[in-house]
Amino acid sequence: MAAQQPPWNPPTKDTAEPVLKVYNSLTRTKNEFIPRNGRHVKWYNCGPTVYDASHMGHARNYVTQDILRRLVTDYFGYDVHFVMNITDIDDKIILRARQNYLVKKFRDETQTLSIDVLTEVRTAWEAYVRSKVCKGLGGDDIPTSGAEWESWSALVQKFGDKSWKAEGLKRDEKFEMHFAAASRTQLALTFAQGLFEKGTQDAVAAHQLIDESADVLALSLDAKYGATVTDPSLSRALAAFWEGKFFEDMARLRVRGPDTLTRVTEYVPEIVAFVERIVQNGYGYEFDGSVYFDTRAFDQSKNHSYAKLEPWSRGNRELLEEGEGALSGSGARRSAADFALWKASKPGEPSWPSPWGQGRPGWHIECSVMASAIFGDNMDIHSGGVDLAFPHHDNEMAQSEAYHECEAWVNYFLHTGHLHIEGLKMSKSLKNFITIDEILAKYSARQLRLAFLTQLWNSKVDFSESLMTGEVKNIEATLNNFFATTKALISQAHAEGPSLEAKHGFDSSEHVLTNTLHEAQKAFRAALCDSFNTPAALDVLRELVSRTNVYINSRGKDLNITVVERVARWVGSMLRMFGLGEGGSSEIGWGQELDDGQSIQNREEVLMPYLRVLSSFRDGVRSLAVSKESGAVKEILTLSDKFRDVDLIPLGVALDDQDDGKALVKLMPPAELIKARDEKRAQADAKAAKKAAAVEAERLKRQQKLEKGRLPPEDLFKPPNVPEGTYGSWDVSGLPLTDSEGKELSKNQGKKVQKEWTAQKKLHDEYVAWRREQQT
Amino acid sequence: MAAQQPPWNPPTKDTAEPVLKVYNSLTRTKNEFIPRNGRHVKWYNCGPTVYDASHMGHARNYVTQDILRRLVTDYFGYDVHFVMNITDIDDKIILRARQNYLVKKFRDETQTLSIDVLTEVRTAWEAYVRSKVCKGLGGDDIPTSGAEWESWSALVQKFGDKSWKAEGLKRDEKFEMHFAAASRTQLALTFAQGLFEKGTQDAVAAHQLIDESADVLALSLDAKYGATVTDPSLSRALAAFWEGKFFEDMARLRVRGPDTLTRVTEYVPEIVAFVERIVQNGYGYEFDGSVYFDTRAFDQSKNHSYAKLEPWSRGNRELLEEGEGALSGSGARRSAADFALWKASKPGEPSWPSPWGQGRPGWHIECSVMASAIFGDNMDIHSGGVDLAFPHHDNEMAQSEAYHECEAWVNYFLHTGHLHIEGLKMSKSLKNFITIDEILAKYSARQLRLAFLTQLWNSKVDFSESLMTGEVKNIEATLNNFFATTKALISQAHAEGPSLEAKHGFDSSEHVLTNTLHEAQKAFRAALCDSFNTPAALDVLRELVSRTNVYINSRGKDLNITVVERVARWVGSMLRMFGLGEGGSSEIGWGQELDDGQSIQNREEVLMPYLRVLSSFRDGVRSLAVSKESGAVKEILTLSDKFRDVDLIPLGVALDDQDDGKALVKLMPPAELIKARDEKRAQADAKAAKKAAAVEAERLKRQQKLEKGRLPPEDLFKPPNVPEGTYGSWDVSGLPLTDSEGKELSKNQGKKVQKEWTAQKKLHDEYVAWRREQQT
Repeated sequence: MAAQQPPWNPPTKDTAEPVLKVYNSLTRTKNEFIPRNGRHVKWYNCGPTVYDASHMGHARNYVTQDILRRLVTDYFGYDVHFVMNITDIDDKIILRARQNYLVKKFRDETQTLSIDVLTEVRTAWEAYVRSKVCKGLGGDDIPTSGAEWESWSALVQKFGDKSWKAEGLKRDEKFEMHFAAASRTQLALTFAQGLFEKGTQDAVAAHQLIDESADVLALSLDAKYGATVTDPSLSRALAAFWEGKFFEDMARLRVRGPDTLTRVTEYVPEIVAFVERIVQNGYGYEFDGSVYFDTRAFDQSKNHSYAKLEPWSRGNRELLEEGEGALSGSGARRSAADFALWKASKPGEPSWPSPWGQGRPGWHIECSVMASAIFGDNMDIHSGGVDLAFPHHDNEMAQSEAYHECEAWVNYFLHTGHLHIEGLKMSKSLKNFITIDEILAKYSARQLRLAFLTQLWNSKVDFSESLMTGEVKNIEATLNNFFATTKALISQAHAEGPSLEAKHGFDSSEHVLTNTLHEAQKAFRAALCDSFNTPAALDVLRELVSRTNVYINSRGKDLNITVVERVARWVGSMLRMFGLGEGGSSEIGWGQELDDGQSIQNREEVLMPYLRVLSSFRDGVRSLAVSKESGAVKEILTLSDKFRDVDLIPLGVALDDQDDGKALVKLMPPAELIKARDEKRAQADAKAAKKAAAVEAERLKRQQKLEKGRLPPEDLFKPPNVPEGTYGSWDVSGLPLTDSEGKELSKNQGKKVQKEWTAQKKLHDEYVAWRREQQT
Repeated sequence: MAAQQPPWNPPTKDTAEPVLKVYNSLTRTKNEFIPRNGRHVKWYNCGPTVYDASHMGHARNYVTQDILRRLVTDYFGYDVHFVMNITDIDDKIILRARQNYLVKKFRDETQTLSIDVLTEVRTAWEAYVRSKVCKGLGGDDIPTSGAEWESWSALVQKFGDKSWKAEGLKRDEKFEMHFAAASRTQLALTFAQGLFEKGTQDAVAAHQLIDESADVLALSLDAKYGATVTDPSLSRALAAFWEGKFFEDMARLRVRGPDTLTRVTEYVPEIVAFVERIVQNGYGYEFDGSVYFDTRAFDQSKNHSYAKLEPWSRGNRELLEEGEGALSGSGARRSAADFALWKASKPGEPSWPSPWGQGRPGWHIECSVMASAIFGDNMDIHSGGVDLAFPHHDNEMAQSEAYHECEAWVNYFLHTGHLHIEGLKMSKSLKNFITIDEILAKYSARQLRLAFLTQLWNSKVDFSESLMTGEVKNIEATLNNFFATTKALISQAHAEGPSLEAKHGFDSSEHVLTNTLHEAQKAFRAALCDSFNTPAALDVLRELVSRTNVYINSRGKDLNITVVERVARWVGSMLRMFGLGEGGSSEIGWGQELDDGQSIQNREEVLMPYLRVLSSFRDGVRSLAVSKESGAVKEILTLSDKFRDVDLIPLGVALDDQDDGKALVKLMPPAELIKARDEKRAQADAKAAKKAAAVEAERLKRQQKLEKGRLPPEDLFKPPNVPEGTYGSWDVSGLPLTDSEGKELSKNQGKKVQKEWTAQKKLHDEYVAWRREQQT
């Protein structure tokens, strides 16, 4: 190599690349996102408290967090470890489980419509109305009998008219829920009373009364018997049930499952140890079996600040009480801002052992412990709904920083915004909440996600009929049309094949559209770098589609489909990246949305071979069953094995029979399964061949033996079985007496022939028996 | 807001993020990759010259470039504009098209085995042997007739023994191809001569002779008539045909199509203008209708260097001639290094108008012009096979820098390495090349891609049987097993549902495996940043899978499937990113590889619910069969019906039982099936209710009748059955004789009572019979 390469200068950037900034609740501004450890991102997301069906608030929260997670992972290319907890120890769960149990027990034990039942419900109802409804109706008490009932009915009517608003009565946000429960109970009670007076004692009527009064009875029964309910599995079973439902709902919303899931019930010993350390570090104190966090001690220590997220909420008693839970004691605290790390359990509350006696974790400590168990003393991102910011997240951070004695346990706190329904705050108390079941019956998962994408993740979403039927359906239709047009044009072009004419196809229109795409890609990135601004990013896609449609319409026959196809591929891949579709990267568009939220291609092509096999297996079973032959049951086993070994294997399905009778189903490459089966068969064949050879050898041996036995012992020592002249005389049984020379056999000789004779006798007897057997 | 948030410090990085470096042929070192324009990347890839079937060399080249493109786009997240050309004007295409045309014409015109045909072929053969074979055989001429044939046969024999190597004869690399063509022709000629001498004039024999001699005839016919072939569509049609085949092959290899495709035939006017500007800029000169690039003028000008990639190859005549093409004239050039920008066309060569007369583009100018048309005066990446580096890419860059008067037209030049087959250079001349059709009949697209991934993109790949059946099949089987096991474990865990036990599941083993994953993610990124080191990246995945298998095997029942699932999801998504599978991001694994190289998306998601149902049906049948109870057969029928009516309906499968015992399998929307089933059930219920009502009515009627028959006919006309004093006297059977006043009954009256009596007798007899029945 005589000559050398000329020097090369690294390129200089013409345009700077934007960096990702995120709105950080810890600063209430957008901060550049800097993970501590290269591209690895530790992310903890607050999961649900599982005691009821998931609703639109959950959808808003978890779909939005799923979008952020997809952006960080799939668009920005970080290696994310996404951890989420399930809160399965909580006052709400305990109460709900206990009340469900008590109402059910009461119902099961009530088999007649008796004066006792009526009294029980009436008493419960009166207590309920007194404590939950009266003030809201503008009085301290209510009429309960006789003509005075009328005024209650009048108030019911009034309430129905919403005229209470005009009367300016002060009601808390749960009032409507309580009023409705009380009214329902009152009506049921009136009806049941009437039946009872007519002499009916019907169990059905009694149960109907209890069902209608369940909310009201739950409180009174719990007050009376709550403390007697000690089975800890009640609340665990309730939590497990709703956890299952939660993940089913998330799957339907195309929310990816967490990488790691932590449940509070599985971390109680760690929580106890964590609390102990906080106390040791001087930030906690025990009182009467409960342990509290010492906010003042923490705040006054160097390096620590209490309530980093919302320092202004520190004194907010309402928020603090909500955070402490309905079953919380009023134990003396050093400061009003202090909160429970560990709660002494009263009877009827699940409990675990601790140095402070039987108790259970406070709410905030759960997340501190579980996130620390997985991530240690720092994480890059913590996310959750904005309503959790104070006190939950502030307390969580304080606890963890008190435990680890670190300055910052969380680097970026991302809070998803509230959800309103038609302009009103959604709340279970207001009963205006919509379950995920209900919303998915009306809109598809894709439409819901689109609705959230049109709003900033950290601002309030107003979910309204007009948003869904207007903007969202418009976007969806625009995109569907664009993809359908593009695919039609491509398949037209493919049908025509490569052109023989010299047609350039890349003129100024194509340059303009290509540049439009490149500018869109840049603007899209800039929008997402700007704290995940999905509405702006969606606008970029819509504008690009609109300009591509203009190109398509204006170019007519001169259209260059490859430019359009490139736009469509990119738009489709970005929509899939948002989680709006699940197709592979080779696909154009975002896949077809099916009713169940799954996009499936060639479903029939994939399924039919399997279905045919399974159906014919069933046919076989049926026809055996119908024939009712005695041997059928055994044949079913054969059929079942054939199904596994012959039918399913070429389809790439392996059934591994397990001891419990439930086979493991695996999808595998057919070739591998065939190979494994054939090897197994070859082994079995070899084994069978060996066995057959052994049987044959045995048969031959026996045959030889029988053959030998054909000779009667009488003839054994006579010619031609011995050489002529071996012996001279024999007794009746054919035993030789003398040799050829008339000389008597020696004693030894006599013994020997006797022995041989006996052996032959035995063989011959066997032969005779076998012959007889053969002849019958 | 009285209080303020405490100050927040941006996190400091604990580990630096590696940056992407690429091996750049312009420096022959790894340079940091810096695109000029943010995340936008301009990338030009040299496409094929389309005149024959694609072979393993193309597979190596285009699959490898596809891998690099996927990495830059999908892993590193750049917005790539990937442009590729199709070279459809080229001496090889022109010659192939013209020769094909002439041989076909000669064949069509030959309808008998005549002395003319034999002479034509003989003459062609002699000329071919003289020009292509003789020197290689060690002489200047060869015997052509009589006994001298023998020596030719001897030489054929000798060649077959490869003993020529020992004789040290100098042969060019195409010798074997020419020798084979000559031998084939010679044998055909001998055979045809024999037939002709025996008087045969058969057209079939004549055509057979021409087919066997096609390679030989192509040269002689082209020499004689080539100049008369002037239809430009001949070469365009050949190119279009092979272009179509090329993209079919690429699709089967899962190579993504270019974003923008440019064809030389569509850019001729731009090429003419480009050449004109080069001449204007002082870097080109015309001679005899052709235009040449002035390498000296270019090299001596400030800011320019000629042959940046391989300055040491400048004088290499062989490479230069190869670059100029077989139809190139020997026009006088100012320097031996100069090359054609524009070639004057001779008769029989396609031509376009230009300021220098009719002509066609030189090879290198095509890429300069098309890439400039799309990208202008700079691109980030240019890629192509390493054999194109000199002179093609060096000339291409020189031309473009001469046209744009820019210093660097290409920032990063990526050259994919050679392909060898079983240690030998693959070459069409050596006829050891394998077409893509052939290789895909033997291995899957996934296996081929895996083979390339196990090697560095820019080093030589030795494609061998042992690589494919050893390493590649091992990797594939390891990954398939891992995914199948993971999926089986997941689906088992799902079937069990969330556990009620407090089981932690995240102990030191799980922490270790989780950290192993994070380290693998880091190492994987480092490998790909190190100039796309895919073998190292694959090793990272393999090691991770192996350590996960160890975890699975060691944990047994205590296994935490979510940790394994996370590993499997990541490994699968990285394999899909490499283009080894096409499934959606929600899928675990890399999809099943089907024979046609397409992987169906979400196959598992589609299938698994069905497979679970069918497997549990089989489980049920087996356990019944195993239990061998007498009633089992009937239960099988029940199971079989439940399978149809309960299990399959929500899955959208209808089984219609047919008379022949073979059910019809239908895929339907589940909602429709549920509706139909419920309607059918309601109808059956209604029918049953109607029947029950009829039975009840019948029973009542009979009861009334029996009730009526309870009265014996003897008492019918006696009180209290008639009013006291209705009758005066009765006969023995109770028939009234007189009325209350002793008066005998009238004839009419007598008839009437007799009739009533008879009727009652009948009813009573029935009643008595029923009573008797009841009592027994």
